[in-house]
Amino acid sequence: MRILVIIPIITKDFIKGTRERVEPYVRPDTKVDFVNIDYGTASIESEYDKALAAPFVIKKVEWAEQQGYDAVVISCMGDPGLQGAKQAVSIPVVGPGEAARQIAPILGENVVRVYPTGLTVLQLVDDTEKTYQILLENSKKALAEGAQVLILGCTGLHGLGKRLQEALGVPMLEGEGLALSLAQMFVDVGLTHSKRAYPKPPEKLRVYP
Amino acid sequence: MRILVIIPIITKDFIKGTRERVEPYVRPDTKVDFVNIDYGTASIESEYDKALAAPFVIKKVEWAEQQGYDAVVISCMGDPGLQGAKQAVSIPVVGPGEAARQIAPILGENVVRVYPTGLTVLQLVDDTEKTYQILLENSKKALAEGAQVLILGCTGLHGLGKRLQEALGVPMLEGEGLALSLAQMFVDVGLTHSKRAYPKPPEKLRVYP
Amino acid sequence: MRILVIIPIITKDFIKGTRERVEPYVRPDTKVDFVNIDYGTASIESEYDKALAAPFVIKKVEWAEQQGYDAVVISCMGDPGLQGAKQAVSIPVVGPGEAARQIAPILGENVVRVYPTGLTVLQLVDDTEKTYQILLENSKKALAEGAQVLILGCTGLHGLGKRLQEALGVPMLEGEGLALSLAQMFVDVGLTHSKRAYPKPPEKLRVYP
Amino acid sequence: MRILVIIPIITKDFIKGTRERVEPYVRPDTKVDFVNIDYGTASIESEYDKALAAPFVIKKVEWAEQQGYDAVVISCMGDPGLQGAKQAVSIPVVGPGEAARQIAPILGENVVRVYPTGLTVLQLVDDTEKTYQILLENSKKALAEGAQVLILGCTGLHGLGKRLQEALGVPMLEGEGLALSLAQMFVDVGLTHSKRAYPKPPEKLRVYP
Amino acid sequence: MRILVIIPIITKDFIKGTRERVEPYVRPDTKVDFVNIDYGTASIESEYDKALAAPFVIKKVEWAEQQGYDAVVISCMGDPGLQGAKQAVSIPVVGPGEAARQIAPILGENVVRVYPTGLTVLQLVDDTEKTYQILLENSKKALAEGAQVLILGCTGLHGLGKRLQEALGVPMLEGEGLALSLAQMFVDVGLTHSKRAYPKPPEKLRVYP
Amino acid sequence: MRILVIIPIITKDFIKGTRERVEPYVRPDTKVDFVNIDYGTASIESEYDKALAAPFVIKKVEWAEQQGYDAVVISCMGDPGLQGAKQAVSIPVVGPGEAARQIAPILGENVVRVYPTGLTVLQLVDDTEKTYQILLENSKKALAEGAQVLILGCTGLHGLGKRLQEALGVPMLEGEGLALSLAQMFVDVGLTHSKRAYPKPPEKLRVYP
Repeated sequence: MRILVIIPIITKDFIKGTRERVEPYVRPDTKVDFVNIDYGTASIESEYDKALAAPFVIKKVEWAEQQGYDAVVISCMGDPGLQGAKQAVSIPVVGPGEAARQIAPILGENVVRVYPTGLTVLQLVDDTEKTYQILLENSKKALAEGAQVLILGCTGLHGLGKRLQEALGVPMLEGEGLALSLAQMFVDVGLTHSKRAYPKPPEKLRVYP
Repeated sequence: MRILVIIPIITKDFIKGTRERVEPYVRPDTKVDFVNIDYGTASIESEYDKALAAPFVIKKVEWAEQQGYDAVVISCMGDPGLQGAKQAVSIPVVGPGEAARQIAPILGENVVRVYPTGLTVLQLVDDTEKTYQILLENSKKALAEGAQVLILGCTGLHGLGKRLQEALGVPMLEGEGLALSLAQMFVDVGLTHSKRAYPKPPEKLRVYP
Repeated sequence: MRILVIIPIITKDFIKGTRERVEPYVRPDTKVDFVNIDYGTASIESEYDKALAAPFVIKKVEWAEQQGYDAVVISCMGDPGLQGAKQAVSIPVVGPGEAARQIAPILGENVVRVYPTGLTVLQLVDDTEKTYQILLENSKKALAEGAQVLILGCTGLHGLGKRLQEALGVPMLEGEGLALSLAQMFVDVGLTHSKRAYPKPPEKLRVYP
Repeated sequence: MRILVIIPIITKDFIKGTRERVEPYVRPDTKVDFVNIDYGTASIESEYDKALAAPFVIKKVEWAEQQGYDAVVISCMGDPGLQGAKQAVSIPVVGPGEAARQIAPILGENVVRVYPTGLTVLQLVDDTEKTYQILLENSKKALAEGAQVLILGCTGLHGLGKRLQEALGVPMLEGEGLALSLAQMFVDVGLTHSKRAYPKPPEKLRVYP
Repeated sequence: MRILVIIPIITKDFIKGTRERVEPYVRPDTKVDFVNIDYGTASIESEYDKALAAPFVIKKVEWAEQQGYDAVVISCMGDPGLQGAKQAVSIPVVGPGEAARQIAPILGENVVRVYPTGLTVLQLVDDTEKTYQILLENSKKALAEGAQVLILGCTGLHGLGKRLQEALGVPMLEGEGLALSLAQMFVDVGLTHSKRAYPKPPEKLRVYP
Repeated sequence: MRILVIIPIITKDFIKGTRERVEPYVRPDTKVDFVNIDYGTASIESEYDKALAAPFVIKKVEWAEQQGYDAVVISCMGDPGLQGAKQAVSIPVVGPGEAARQIAPILGENVVRVYPTGLTVLQLVDDTEKTYQILLENSKKALAEGAQVLILGCTGLHGLGKRLQEALGVPMLEGEGLALSLAQMFVDVGLTHSKRAYPKPPEKLRVYP
């Protein structure tokens, strides 16, 4: 099967890291392609960024269906454009945010608080070691406050999930991989989102750049 | 004070009706301007349409702040782009959806179900009489099921709110007017949304059409 | 329009302060009168005080409607007698508690915890500077714990809201003004509480002091 | 032990029926007295009536404590004045509304909807047979909609609870008896409401009719 | 009336303590018997232990009904087997967990957090004085964090509830006694759990050790 | 990898059907074994049946870990023994109930009501055609009441899921397959339930048949 992973930013910096990160979740018979969006921002870390990215994520999802992809994953924990994309197409579209939030409760009581790093996304990926230390400290704080399962809040954090999970001894979920895994299962067994939940938008005048 | 009402579609059809509808909510010393967005759709009736409109609503909100407007109202019950717009600017931005949902409980237990008309937005405004009959029927159904306050679900329904309110004897809220009223009050007393809730997005590369 | 503000205590001490505090919310064409209740307590700071005040608030609301007032505001964050008053009359009755709670979420995530001052209401108004320092400290604690919008918990705190808002840089809501603003809007556009939510109590024997 | 049952209306009509109804819940060593309130209404069926009764219920509760009663039950499903009364005194005060709502889930999923009879309280007690038929019909409707436990909504319905329970084969709770039962247990084992939840109101000027 | 208290463990160690603890809740005309289960564990402190005990609790409940007991109390705050036991029989079955959780809100806002002692159940009963000190410390922490009513989390803590309640001045609920009290009331007035909530399981092949 | 599917009943009737049903979810490199429990019932359709099965499900899960299985699926929508089993072992244990409930919201708003067939489990599997007609009718009712995604409530319904999904055009989830799919993913990427959520029960006396 063929799955398209949309990295919803305009620079190619994250493609290599994403490919490495999701590899353990890709089955031998699955071909995964990675693509950026045409307009948008260099990273997504606000509702503002999400809104700017969303239409161009949706356009790529529509393109993926036309190209015959079997499913799409939107590679950002904020799931930008996810609801609109599900309305636009019939193939499964899965976001890492929804995947992590739904699977976490199976492994333990989910973390209910967000622990900000105090860095921008671009700073996060710049100094991996510093980022690791901040995440480790935040994780320990979360566990002290009762968390039982942790979710990595940014899909751009190359390889830190496994390292944190080993250091802490609790599940550390990475949304992209979970989303990719669900996407493959949906394709296998003929499941996709309900068109009663995400009806196809009626045709009308739409003027777009 | 000067308030900008953004009608988040690409056609000018709704400006006149919107102006008439919000008039009872405009105070003598308030000047209200109306503007469309540059790209988007002819109406908003899905998550898909909302996502397409959002970036261009946000651009207009940023423009409004630069032009010295005191506050902005986004004239659509779906509040497209509202969260991102609040992050982008410091002047109050109010959506009719949030205004109606928050004010309704002061007047009675809110309607918790959505009663679809079965028509597209453009059909709704085409045949006012037919639309009125459908809304009347839906309202009666809602009241029979326990609703105590009704909210008109589309801001494009010219003049039907008052007529329905009189026929039914229950409050029929029109979100645009409520949003405009809140916007004027916020300006009067120096209130705006909290920057702790809607922090200014950090500067970064943003490529846009 | 004429609006009656009921100060639900038996002493006249708070009238002057209340009048000053709500002034920015009063429109040029609105006449606001202030009145105490006939029996009750010197301040309201418990369920006990609220229960003692409630019947006499309701009596004043009934009197206001008979006198031709267009709307009523009950000037106490505890909204004593509000539900019964809405049942008794057809003109809008708005409480500062409900007004603040409903409007706050438009400006940011609401404060969910109550931070007590450790003073009685009468002590609060006695030493403004001490009260200001306590409120400032409580506010900082609330913000450190994640609050994004603050609500002044007592309507008797003359002029401290604006000062705190400027010192802290977050919205500090004063319920009385918001209630008065909503009351004016309701009168403007012919809205009042739903009689399906607040039906007129049936006539029967009622013996009252 | 001595328990005071306050019937929070101004007529003596309900005392005999109440005495009969709670009898199965009274233990041999318990002496129960019944008392009306000094001012208020002939029945309680609205927030308005509850507000009018509340201060005079509280006064009777304070009197009961002074008289050495061990506990108080407020005989009305609306629990008028209950919160204020718990603040005023240290002896247990129990309302039939809270008692029924808390005990029902032990016996099955509680009825979540209110089924109005369409009669006033005074009509309800006037024609017992008609009332029974209406309650039977309402109960069947509730069961058809999934209710597993029913609560009699008015404490004034003499002897109908047992008859309905036998006809329907599901638990039909009568709040007064449950409240009386809890009150006796609280006295037995030295429990009362927490003063952290219901702190004694501070002394201050209180002018009362 | 005759009530069976099932102590859902396999050792007889807790019978004497339980008998002493529930004594204040037993009425003169009630005969209470105590019994262990045939298979299971030496104490219950995990979902694992609860699952192991449940079938043998249910068997004892079925036996109690056959023997003519009027009601059953399962003496463990985890309420093991409670739902299945209610399905199996028609006499009231009450668990101390459900009893304490339902009655606590009548006395004040309930403690919403669990404060673990860091000891196993068997250690808890071994050194009463050490246990008391830990519970006292935990209770103070809970009160500092806003608790208004406390629930003793283990039914095996002989005599510590009253001592803690006196030291702290807040209600300290002991579930077993509350359950026993409710059970007696249910028998008195002919109440039991709804068979619509807990239908009798259909007959079928059941092979059991 | 090797996964054990526990069919938590005492008869072998469902093994063949289960094997066929989960086949589309099994990957080429996964070996799945099926096993019954030693004591329990012929089907599971009540809390009573679940309680009887739970200890013997847990025993089989412990045995699976000792035998070197990589993960376990409990093949019953009621997830009997699931919480205790997660405490007992370190390998992933997944229930079809939790799997379906968590994955459904990704595909649409979940069905919130249970639609009973009126048949026992054993009758359900006896007459497939009759069962299909009942399920089809129930599904249509659910869709008319707003459901967007359906979950097959019994894992014993051989092959009806796909047929219903095709007839109705909405996702019809089968929990066993989803659970098996999640189990395989957890093994692939080294995830299992958090031991902070499901701590290993301390050693103690446990006497068991």
